[in-house]
Amino acid sequence: MSGKMKEVSQDLIAPHGKEEKLMPLLLEGEELKAETEKAQSLKQIKITSRETSDLVMLGIGAFTPLKGFMSKADWKGVCDDFMTEDGTFWPIPITVSTDDEDVKEGDEIALVDDETGTIIATMKVEERYTIDKEYECKAVYTTTDEEHPGVQKVMVQGKYNLAGPVKVISESYYPERFKGLYHRPAETRKMFNDLGWKRIAAFQTRNPMHRSHEYLAKIAIETMDGVYIHQLVGKLKPGDIPADVRVKAIQALVDNYFVKGTVLQGGYPMEMRYAGPREALLHAVFRQNYGCSHMIIGRDHAGVGDYYGPFDAQKIFDQIPPGALKCQNLNIDWTFYCNKCDGMASMKTCPHGKDDRILLSGTMVRKTLSEGGDISPKFSRPEVVEILKAYYQGLADKDKVEIKLHGAATGEVKKK
Amino acid sequence: MSGKMKEVSQDLIAPHGKEEKLMPLLLEGEELKAETEKAQSLKQIKITSRETSDLVMLGIGAFTPLKGFMSKADWKGVCDDFMTEDGTFWPIPITVSTDDEDVKEGDEIALVDDETGTIIATMKVEERYTIDKEYECKAVYTTTDEEHPGVQKVMVQGKYNLAGPVKVISESYYPERFKGLYHRPAETRKMFNDLGWKRIAAFQTRNPMHRSHEYLAKIAIETMDGVYIHQLVGKLKPGDIPADVRVKAIQALVDNYFVKGTVLQGGYPMEMRYAGPREALLHAVFRQNYGCSHMIIGRDHAGVGDYYGPFDAQKIFDQIPPGALKCQNLNIDWTFYCNKCDGMASMKTCPHGKDDRILLSGTMVRKTLSEGGDISPKFSRPEVVEILKAYYQGLADKDKVEIKLHGAATGEVKKK
Repeated sequence: MSGKMKEVSQDLIAPHGKEEKLMPLLLEGEELKAETEKAQSLKQIKITSRETSDLVMLGIGAFTPLKGFMSKADWKGVCDDFMTEDGTFWPIPITVSTDDEDVKEGDEIALVDDETGTIIATMKVEERYTIDKEYECKAVYTTTDEEHPGVQKVMVQGKYNLAGPVKVISESYYPERFKGLYHRPAETRKMFNDLGWKRIAAFQTRNPMHRSHEYLAKIAIETMDGVYIHQLVGKLKPGDIPADVRVKAIQALVDNYFVKGTVLQGGYPMEMRYAGPREALLHAVFRQNYGCSHMIIGRDHAGVGDYYGPFDAQKIFDQIPPGALKCQNLNIDWTFYCNKCDGMASMKTCPHGKDDRILLSGTMVRKTLSEGGDISPKFSRPEVVEILKAYYQGLADKDKVEIKLHGAATGEVKKK
Repeated sequence: MSGKMKEVSQDLIAPHGKEEKLMPLLLEGEELKAETEKAQSLKQIKITSRETSDLVMLGIGAFTPLKGFMSKADWKGVCDDFMTEDGTFWPIPITVSTDDEDVKEGDEIALVDDETGTIIATMKVEERYTIDKEYECKAVYTTTDEEHPGVQKVMVQGKYNLAGPVKVISESYYPERFKGLYHRPAETRKMFNDLGWKRIAAFQTRNPMHRSHEYLAKIAIETMDGVYIHQLVGKLKPGDIPADVRVKAIQALVDNYFVKGTVLQGGYPMEMRYAGPREALLHAVFRQNYGCSHMIIGRDHAGVGDYYGPFDAQKIFDQIPPGALKCQNLNIDWTFYCNKCDGMASMKTCPHGKDDRILLSGTMVRKTLSEGGDISPKFSRPEVVEILKAYYQGLADKDKVEIKLHGAATGEVKKK
């Protein structure tokens, strides 16, 4: 091979932001010890589970290059132009709020998870400002309808937003409760390097994987090095499969139907905002930080109800400024098994009719499994069904499990 | 949507070369008429089918930005550094040769297809030079073994290479014989635009498509706008399926198993060189000119025998200088139906064993079909099998069709 030809580069995608390096805000060692001690004496501000999980994301560098909660100029720039004041591409405001009138600019405060009482971080308050909540909702969620779970959380926010750099001193319960699943971006980058992966697709999920999801992952693997099954380990909705069962079910799928070394499971703490297209972009931003070159965007990614068109979250990637994001979208349509195709397909590749396709709603699958019914192996792998069945049967034995027959993802809204 | 966000661009990939525009060398109208007339009086130089098909590629702009056959400096640059003298990325020398001692630098000559007697082009001879044929073979084919069909053609070339700009006056029999299939790059670009395609994968074939090929195409369609099934309509090997039967078989597959508007069939005249990795790059260069953003590179692309590693043609895309090629490789491993996967898969996505996979050699399939035997619908779609069976049965009725039981692709070598 000639001198002009080079060896294959194994560099992972650079983290988000101009500096192209991970910026975790979690303290370590002596610094951590000192700040933890200092935090005890600071004024405490209670924060919601959404704010807590955003802080953990900041702590582990998943929100690189943000240095804390956003200022009013950042907030406005993100709402209007997908950009913070310093020109960093960012699709959704990352803010913390309070009703406390006593917090002043210049204060140092401790941010306390309202649910666990844990101090997650300290913060230097550089700015206290009010926002037009409807303005934010309209820009980010394209609606002010309070039935929308993301809008709902914005509307019950405190009166003031607080901006300033944070020092994170706790990752909350995530490392402990999701041991082996919860990853920091620096950790996945090392794992990807060890696996020799360079082209990596992130697959976002908060559910067990059936064959349609297996197919999404495999489409990516066919042309890339591997898939990172990146699971939401933040708060779940009632009726959702708990993380341990989900992980076991996914592992059964991986062990039986994937080639060794092509799949990695991981978890991240951020809560769903259900902001559809804007959230798809945020998902891609932090997956870039985790080292993923691509992000699978399916039908109605991060959507809820009928607020977004099924492909809005795919199209928005073509509308952002060139170079704004290094992590690329891998758009895939609705997938299913088709009898005439004699295999998995999507609306893009299957020309046949509804009657040839195996289509079951998640709700119907849960209902069937709880009643001990059978699920077609064309829909879900028997190894996966077995685990889910055992889970639902266990629930049924304990008490009659209530199956919600509508899909609205409302989350839980709470604000002191 | 904010002012910073833009509408989705529908621009096709730019043609190869610095000028980023198609440069067809085929004359038209009055110019064509005048040059055709003039050509009759010029000294005639006979050229091989490979040289003829390269001239047609130059004529239709598929070899943009080349302006004719390569000079010695170009030849050397391409052999050594994948680059012509003016810095254009190019992986395989495009040259014409003769043994005629009378051709001198400064001459204008007519290039005549030795097989049909048609004058294909006129050429201004700017340089007559000799080459070290073994040097070329070693660089391009990585071997000087004359069993290699590409090497063989180089070794029997004429004593002198002739360099200079060409004016193409005929596309030979291609437009007529392959009506509706034979496309010029300007034509496909218009078709892609009309279809609204932007991300397009070229699929290279000279055979009918079975399910493994269908799967390759569908992997591409799942994440792109469409697939251009680009078929070699140059000279065939004995035993190959004729183009009309192949097109009919592929169309049966497309009609029954692909979504309307996701697949286009086309043909191109260039002959196979079997240069493996280097040829894969050449395939991508001219597919870029045709408007394809991607090129499917399977196992052993453009290979023959054991001269290249099965993934050399994929790896070489990572070794060329960044930006050398706009058309990207879409690497896919060996594909097949797997019973345990219950669908199509590849070595990258199927963890199961040989016994679970439906693997038939092309030779075995041809043999079975000629004998009227059945092919599993897991290997080939019944609609395709029916057409191929009818073809082989027709042959068998005419005379006993000879099935070659080895896969060597020797091509036919002829030089005056």
